[in-house]
Amino acid sequence: MREDLKRFFELLDEIAVYKRCIGKINFDMSCLAPKEAMDEISSDIAVLGQHLYKLSHSDEYTKLLLSIHNDTTGLSPIQKKAIEHLYNDYEKEKNFTPEFSYECDLAFSKAYSSWLQAKEKNDYSLFKDSFKQIIDLTKKSIDLRDNKKESYYDTLLNDYEEGGNSKQLDCFFNSLKETIVPLLKKIVAQGKPIRSEFLSRPCSISKQEAFSKYLMDIQGLRRDALVFTTTEHPFTDNFGPHDVRVTTHFYEDNFVSNIFSTLHEGGHAMFMQNEPTEMYENHNSDRMSSAMHECISRFYENIIGRSKEFIHFIYPKFIEIGADTFSDVSENELYEAVNIAAPSLIRIESDELSYSIHIMIRYELEKMFINGEISVDDIPDKWNEKYKEYLGIDVPNDASGCLQDVHWSGSYGYFPSYALGNAYGAQILNTMNKDFDVFEAVKNGKLDLIADWLKNKVYAKASLLSPDEWIKDITGESLNVKYYLDYLVEKFTKLYELN
Amino acid sequence: MREDLKRFFELLDEIAVYKRCIGKINFDMSCLAPKEAMDEISSDIAVLGQHLYKLSHSDEYTKLLLSIHNDTTGLSPIQKKAIEHLYNDYEKEKNFTPEFSYECDLAFSKAYSSWLQAKEKNDYSLFKDSFKQIIDLTKKSIDLRDNKKESYYDTLLNDYEEGGNSKQLDCFFNSLKETIVPLLKKIVAQGKPIRSEFLSRPCSISKQEAFSKYLMDIQGLRRDALVFTTTEHPFTDNFGPHDVRVTTHFYEDNFVSNIFSTLHEGGHAMFMQNEPTEMYENHNSDRMSSAMHECISRFYENIIGRSKEFIHFIYPKFIEIGADTFSDVSENELYEAVNIAAPSLIRIESDELSYSIHIMIRYELEKMFINGEISVDDIPDKWNEKYKEYLGIDVPNDASGCLQDVHWSGSYGYFPSYALGNAYGAQILNTMNKDFDVFEAVKNGKLDLIADWLKNKVYAKASLLSPDEWIKDITGESLNVKYYLDYLVEKFTKLYELN
Repeated sequence: MREDLKRFFELLDEIAVYKRCIGKINFDMSCLAPKEAMDEISSDIAVLGQHLYKLSHSDEYTKLLLSIHNDTTGLSPIQKKAIEHLYNDYEKEKNFTPEFSYECDLAFSKAYSSWLQAKEKNDYSLFKDSFKQIIDLTKKSIDLRDNKKESYYDTLLNDYEEGGNSKQLDCFFNSLKETIVPLLKKIVAQGKPIRSEFLSRPCSISKQEAFSKYLMDIQGLRRDALVFTTTEHPFTDNFGPHDVRVTTHFYEDNFVSNIFSTLHEGGHAMFMQNEPTEMYENHNSDRMSSAMHECISRFYENIIGRSKEFIHFIYPKFIEIGADTFSDVSENELYEAVNIAAPSLIRIESDELSYSIHIMIRYELEKMFINGEISVDDIPDKWNEKYKEYLGIDVPNDASGCLQDVHWSGSYGYFPSYALGNAYGAQILNTMNKDFDVFEAVKNGKLDLIADWLKNKVYAKASLLSPDEWIKDITGESLNVKYYLDYLVEKFTKLYELN
Repeated sequence: MREDLKRFFELLDEIAVYKRCIGKINFDMSCLAPKEAMDEISSDIAVLGQHLYKLSHSDEYTKLLLSIHNDTTGLSPIQKKAIEHLYNDYEKEKNFTPEFSYECDLAFSKAYSSWLQAKEKNDYSLFKDSFKQIIDLTKKSIDLRDNKKESYYDTLLNDYEEGGNSKQLDCFFNSLKETIVPLLKKIVAQGKPIRSEFLSRPCSISKQEAFSKYLMDIQGLRRDALVFTTTEHPFTDNFGPHDVRVTTHFYEDNFVSNIFSTLHEGGHAMFMQNEPTEMYENHNSDRMSSAMHECISRFYENIIGRSKEFIHFIYPKFIEIGADTFSDVSENELYEAVNIAAPSLIRIESDELSYSIHIMIRYELEKMFINGEISVDDIPDKWNEKYKEYLGIDVPNDASGCLQDVHWSGSYGYFPSYALGNAYGAQILNTMNKDFDVFEAVKNGKLDLIADWLKNKVYAKASLLSPDEWIKDITGESLNVKYYLDYLVEKFTKLYELN
């Protein structure tokens, strides 16, 4: 290895230690630490964070990064990509003054707490000023960059999905709108009734836990590289491929919610456990886009998890574990109940079909307020208008309206990734089906076939390629929304017996 | 506050952050982290540890410590004590060369892993050389000190219990031996039979967990400053009074073991949650001796927990939670079963009466091998001789003999603290009984009376006083083993209907 790269990797190793340690203390804070300790833990994290900042902003670090970026002779493709990613991180903030960074830290931390309060008290006015301030700071931070895209919003989109822009996304969401909105209306008007009263029957946490572990085993997660525990708002995190952490929240009266939450988070965990170790060793792991990650979690949750064949396979275990509770529920009734589609108010509780419409509404709004076409004062009304127009729903208050998601208290341009992930998943399914009959495998519980395929074709180059390069590499073509729409139309037309 | 003290406290604040963070990552390692990640976590801890070492060995740190220690004008009594404790820490290692410290680190880490292996393979020879090496290094580290006591072993005793020495401990253990050894023999020969078969009936983990939480509530632990979770080898740890962590290990077929383990660890946790906050704020918390801490955990476990009155109070809840399992067990049968006394092989599984004899054996042996009267070659035989002499037991192998405890793979002089703790507890009980009828309170579940008394009389000055000053402050006299022996004789004579 080149001497300068060797030294640079030593610095990155130390940086990685601090990142893991801060990550673990954050994880502890979310899952274990007691209430009384929260303030102290936050300030402990800040102290480690200061040290981490010093390490990753030292003169030696910057000098090495710039000179290696300038001449990559002798670097392997993975190393080149690692340097490119790190350079991009550097580039985004290189013109920030310390004062500006400090101003941002304060404003974003205040925005989060005022959002929390506003949501709790159902009072948008408590968030509005902070909201405006962080939108302004976000734009100011873009002004400070050397590399900007066509608009503020396009710059942000490109941060989350390299090459992403609003022209492409307008097309994408228009296609979704044209298909999903009328399909949902048709279901409401003519769909056959689906039995669902059993979904809220109480089932003990210990039974649900046993079922979650069973699901993660059949997904193919390595138990010796996995932590599974509970928290208020479930997430998945990793400290390298040997330490992947899935969290969940059990609700006694919502067994089924936990099944799909586990499959979703388990999907993220599969991606994390199965990136090639060379990525990790060369400081180039976990560099895929959010849509690429979300693609896998939603693939396991919806495309596999909510399929007739998967329900067929898990049904005996479901009945065995929930015997006293669900003995009167047939396999087909279970399949239908977990696929009920209906317009609803809250994104994270919405169904597979209407989910992307929730995302579209957020996309349309953030594009407008980031580019200055509407002001923060307009957001609640615009939000409510769009829920009425696309989903036929009256939003009763801002807490379950424009204040429902945490995202806008800190970041913009992320939401589209969720919908893109859905579309990638259906496109990948189409390709996978050419290699083997996916649902025949699912029906027989052979999820290892899927895991192997994803490992070789999907995870292997994820941190090396842009989203467009990646989906082309896997499927032979750029993102094509047709696969996703065909999948939805076929599934829900059949389920609801529409004609 | 004096300017130099203010600056020194800033350094201590930063040191405290790193200690807490390392502690939390260690805690995560014991309770949560997956197998595959263990090596990486160890090396992460080493990186943070290096930084911590730098902070606590910087020139500025040492200069401030020495100058403040030299002139404590204007310091509060708590601050003076904090400086004294820190100076003692410094003093112990001030003459170590970096090479010697490194040699110790290597040797102790190797000793621990060779002890693990030796115990697993039941082969003392695998540990012997390492054992000898760390004994030698321990003595060499004492040679490097300016302040030594009369013998190597007295120096070590004094590290754990200020003022402790083998002359005093010889007397103490002789008294125990003269009373407990014949009492145990009498129980074996003439004690009435006690029913115990129900102790191993299986009881679900979730029921045991509910019972543990009930016990910690009645002990008086603040839930918002507490973590309760599981691990292989239970312990209690704290990151300040707002973040105290109790761990346990549930065994389906040993409900009762978990009850007393919870009370024991809960006792440690009570001490940790209830030290005065000024101790914490002035970097003088958690400075009590091990015997003082062990005194409280054993007070809750044995004196309170295994009393007739406590069993009376918890019996209805015990039957409610374990209804299907224990409905044929009377209150008195439960009381008797949890107090069975019998000579046994393993210290941590031994009963309240014989426990201190296990400690005495270790005390007698470590005194000899530290002072060079026997060599490591002699230890297994000597161990087995003493188990035969005092407990009438044949030790079948070294794994359940001299290799059973982790302690000798790293530290010497600690064991006596356990027995001293027992004796302190009985002496404190005697004083507490003068203020209110302790067991009348226990019978009615009024453990808050005990908690308040301990908080005011026992915890308040624990980090300010030496063990002798402390027990005098509480009870008006130095350690007097009579209270402990009277307590044991009365309890077990009655229980076993001896005459």
